[in-house]
Amino acid sequence: MSEAELQDLLDHRAIEDLLVGYATALDGRHWERLGAIFAPNARVRYGDRDWLEGPEAVASYCRRVLERLDLSQHRIGTFDIKVVGDTANSSCYFAAEHVRTLGRGVARYTVGGTYRDLLERGAAGWRITQRELEMSWTDGDPEALR
Amino acid sequence: MSEAELQDLLDHRAIEDLLVGYATALDGRHWERLGAIFAPNARVRYGDRDWLEGPEAVASYCRRVLERLDLSQHRIGTFDIKVVGDTANSSCYFAAEHVRTLGRGVARYTVGGTYRDLLERGAAGWRITQRELEMSWTDGDPEALR
Amino acid sequence: MSEAELQDLLDHRAIEDLLVGYATALDGRHWERLGAIFAPNARVRYGDRDWLEGPEAVASYCRRVLERLDLSQHRIGTFDIKVVGDTANSSCYFAAEHVRTLGRGVARYTVGGTYRDLLERGAAGWRITQRELEMSWTDGDPEALR
Repeated sequence: MSEAELQDLLDHRAIEDLLVGYATALDGRHWERLGAIFAPNARVRYGDRDWLEGPEAVASYCRRVLERLDLSQHRIGTFDIKVVGDTANSSCYFAAEHVRTLGRGVARYTVGGTYRDLLERGAAGWRITQRELEMSWTDGDPEALR
Repeated sequence: MSEAELQDLLDHRAIEDLLVGYATALDGRHWERLGAIFAPNARVRYGDRDWLEGPEAVASYCRRVLERLDLSQHRIGTFDIKVVGDTANSSCYFAAEHVRTLGRGVARYTVGGTYRDLLERGAAGWRITQRELEMSWTDGDPEALR
Repeated sequence: MSEAELQDLLDHRAIEDLLVGYATALDGRHWERLGAIFAPNARVRYGDRDWLEGPEAVASYCRRVLERLDLSQHRIGTFDIKVVGDTANSSCYFAAEHVRTLGRGVARYTVGGTYRDLLERGAAGWRITQRELEMSWTDGDPEALR
């Protein structure tokens, strides 16, 4: 075993925790946590929308979309993480539930896709510097998200 | 790299394996395995039901609910595990399929939610000391579980 | 901490990456990558079909099934990996989406189940030597896969 192999394990662990931290921040409505997940100059694009610049713009967008829901659950996994020195590429799959009570009952809308990320290691640890959400499939009632 | 960082990797691995062990024990109908997953004095609460005390009460409850099914699949992931010395906090998401042949055909009922766990390291390794299942959403035919 | 524990972490990481590599190879239509995932003499069985022998037969089968789709997403997780020296047993759950535009609109078919694998470590690293896909449940429109 080499130092490099062990460092790779630690980096992989740290990055996976960061990706999970995004999901649980959204589902727990902890918008302020996104400042420790994205780099100050990070850019994020949800599907074919415009790029959002910086963690506050991301937080503000997610808040607007998710706040009106009863709850959300961003299940993530199938992590494909490649670390090269102080930078990394990552992709992971998500299946996100969005649940909302409407006049006619409880609506559920599921969105599946991929997060494609670039990351950098800075003084405070790993941060996402670029995230692109690629949507692959949906299920259920889109009214839940409208 | 410090000893502490490597120990954290090992603990994380052991705890993730334990959480997976719960899922595969249930789906493989290996009720006896729950004795090596929960501490003898563990308490478990499924949604708003009463607390179950000890691995045998948990095994007996799960057996009653799952035994009548054709099969179940507890997919778990999005692990958020924090170790502090010999104790740990963990949450993970689940999406559990319940499949059962009824008179009218094969019924499937999916339940999604979060396991919120406390764990302790003892002489035999990590064990869950407290588990709360929080249900978030359902899909399909509830008759599969009745 | 022992050398053996750290080696187990490295092996677990390598095997999980290999299992993820199968999923992303299929979804990215990188059929040629299967040659670095399966051993030359690997055998693979999808449900109750005949055994496929070798990575090229696997690639050719997957290509035929998946190529006609708009997209697929093989979400895998709940990894249960046991390493003993240069061999390993693994099982993991999958939920695979198959999306295809048909005359009547976009059809989606989901298949859930378990991959049961044997693996060996060779000169080039870990490779799957045997994979059995066990199907557990389906959802949606089977026409998407036909």
